[in-house]
Amino acid sequence: MEALSQGREGWHARFVMKHPALLSLVLLASCSATPAPAPAPSEASAPALAPTEIVAAAPVADWSAIAPSDLLVMDLSPGAKGAARRVVIQLLPAPFSQGWIGNIRKLAAAKWWDGTAVNRVQDGYVVQWGDPDGEDKAKAKPLPPGLSKVDAASYATSSSEVRPLVADAIAHEALGTPHPNTPIFMKDAYADTTLVWRGWPIGTDGEKMWPIHCYGTVGVGRDYPPDTGSGAELYAVIGQAPRQLDRNIAVVGRVIDGMENLSSLPRGTGDIGFYKTAEERTPILSIRIGSEVPGLPRYEYLSTDSKSFAAYADARANRRDSFYIRPAGGVDICNVPVPVRRVP
Amino acid sequence: MEALSQGREGWHARFVMKHPALLSLVLLASCSATPAPAPAPSEASAPALAPTEIVAAAPVADWSAIAPSDLLVMDLSPGAKGAARRVVIQLLPAPFSQGWIGNIRKLAAAKWWDGTAVNRVQDGYVVQWGDPDGEDKAKAKPLPPGLSKVDAASYATSSSEVRPLVADAIAHEALGTPHPNTPIFMKDAYADTTLVWRGWPIGTDGEKMWPIHCYGTVGVGRDYPPDTGSGAELYAVIGQAPRQLDRNIAVVGRVIDGMENLSSLPRGTGDIGFYKTAEERTPILSIRIGSEVPGLPRYEYLSTDSKSFAAYADARANRRDSFYIRPAGGVDICNVPVPVRRVP
Repeated sequence: MEALSQGREGWHARFVMKHPALLSLVLLASCSATPAPAPAPSEASAPALAPTEIVAAAPVADWSAIAPSDLLVMDLSPGAKGAARRVVIQLLPAPFSQGWIGNIRKLAAAKWWDGTAVNRVQDGYVVQWGDPDGEDKAKAKPLPPGLSKVDAASYATSSSEVRPLVADAIAHEALGTPHPNTPIFMKDAYADTTLVWRGWPIGTDGEKMWPIHCYGTVGVGRDYPPDTGSGAELYAVIGQAPRQLDRNIAVVGRVIDGMENLSSLPRGTGDIGFYKTAEERTPILSIRIGSEVPGLPRYEYLSTDSKSFAAYADARANRRDSFYIRPAGGVDICNVPVPVRRVP
Repeated sequence: MEALSQGREGWHARFVMKHPALLSLVLLASCSATPAPAPAPSEASAPALAPTEIVAAAPVADWSAIAPSDLLVMDLSPGAKGAARRVVIQLLPAPFSQGWIGNIRKLAAAKWWDGTAVNRVQDGYVVQWGDPDGEDKAKAKPLPPGLSKVDAASYATSSSEVRPLVADAIAHEALGTPHPNTPIFMKDAYADTTLVWRGWPIGTDGEKMWPIHCYGTVGVGRDYPPDTGSGAELYAVIGQAPRQLDRNIAVVGRVIDGMENLSSLPRGTGDIGFYKTAEERTPILSIRIGSEVPGLPRYEYLSTDSKSFAAYADARANRRDSFYIRPAGGVDICNVPVPVRRVP
């Protein structure tokens, strides 16, 4: 299917990269991620850049470093043929979920997860890890001292910081001149508005804003409310974005490397994907904050207020590269994953 | 996370199942899948049924049999410890994609796929299978005679059959009395309207309608347009719904059993998820039409014009069961998968 179109650059990519001055023109001409009339196939001009090509052509200045202290590094037991299985998670920045993330830092410092396991893999939904005996108070592994109890009010935070951005973007849309570097997504089934802000997909209703669940999102398992979980029990999304969980559970980060080491695990044999036997679980060797892991690669993300990101979001909404005959004219925010790479 | 709330029935489920006359009242009271004001946590009444509980309580009359002749059964080589790996795919009914599906029936009858392989697993995107040498004209396995060449016009079809349903549902919404058995989804980033019709999620723009890509959707791999593929190269979605492919590629069905045998395969080691070496591929033992497979279980789906389905769709949009504190008030159509089960 996309075998031929995604993997290599078309003439547009080569042309633009040889003529960097033209790049900004191309990007300025195509910077809306909100629905726009899709040209009929016969009206379409020559094939444009694919999203991957736009990312590959982004200037160095459009990439932002991720501090190793904001990474959580999980090493699973070796896989087939002894292959190492590492999962790297980027933790959310303030003002989101900092209570739980503070707990996660303490749990990692205490090496609490070492010797725990991946206990649940529910197809199309989540992989979950932590203490397999966590539900049994008599057998549960004691948590380290000093963890905070976080309230459900922390699922969302004031939207005052993004409100002017959203208003500005909506005003631009109304004038038919989409904002050059704040792509917003109005046709969302779950939130009034969604946008990508400081590297993260968020929802807002004008009063509050909150991080949302996409493929690869990491959150905090919990029991019934008002319990919101400590952060010791974590999950990662491995299917269609379960947006119904937004504001019902704490989002703390996203997998940026090694996602396949979670998503390809054998599915659970019991109810809702829990393994029936201890032997089926995948042991966790260690979980550490990135700054404690020798030799960890450096990572960076495509700045989401850059023109490159706006052009990437637009191309995700309007595929005009050679493979496509009908651009969609819109895109779900979870289909605009923030590009993350190892620093070249 | 949902360990406690999804796996067992709350008192509501037990109460309603003991008093079936009340079931229809509960369902009639909550039949809209389109956004509705979500009650604030403090206003919420006692926990309601979870979607799984609604499905479990659906009367026998609300289930529709799937003809074995509309199934495609793929047996992969045995997995770990010699476990059988079967994938069952339900093919789309008319008026959708029948040209490609006719070819698929011929390919299965000719046992053409026997000895081919799963060649590509791209994380968060697709698993793809067929002739590993299909791209190399000199080495490609010859296709059976009599396959049809299908035109891209067949990606969509006239929407005349669903137009009255959509108009009726919209009229009901406008009056604040959602249609009791046609849930529609207006806030979709890719189509004017999406709905579930005769068991399948579809998009429509008022003129045309087309099947859409969700988790588990099966489609026809192709080269650059105007080629639309023969049906010999197939893929299944294993990540966030790649809706940008709608109307750009042929949808032919969905996986209804054994999805984990595709989604948990090792990810490809090469570009866009192709395996670098032949040894990494998963051999396909056989692909047959279901009516040719002895001992195949019977399957049925929850009729999508039933009140049970409307209630299920509403519950997916407004989770009011014990785990949730804030119903979303909306849902993406790909988060309302049509329930399919083996006939009890």
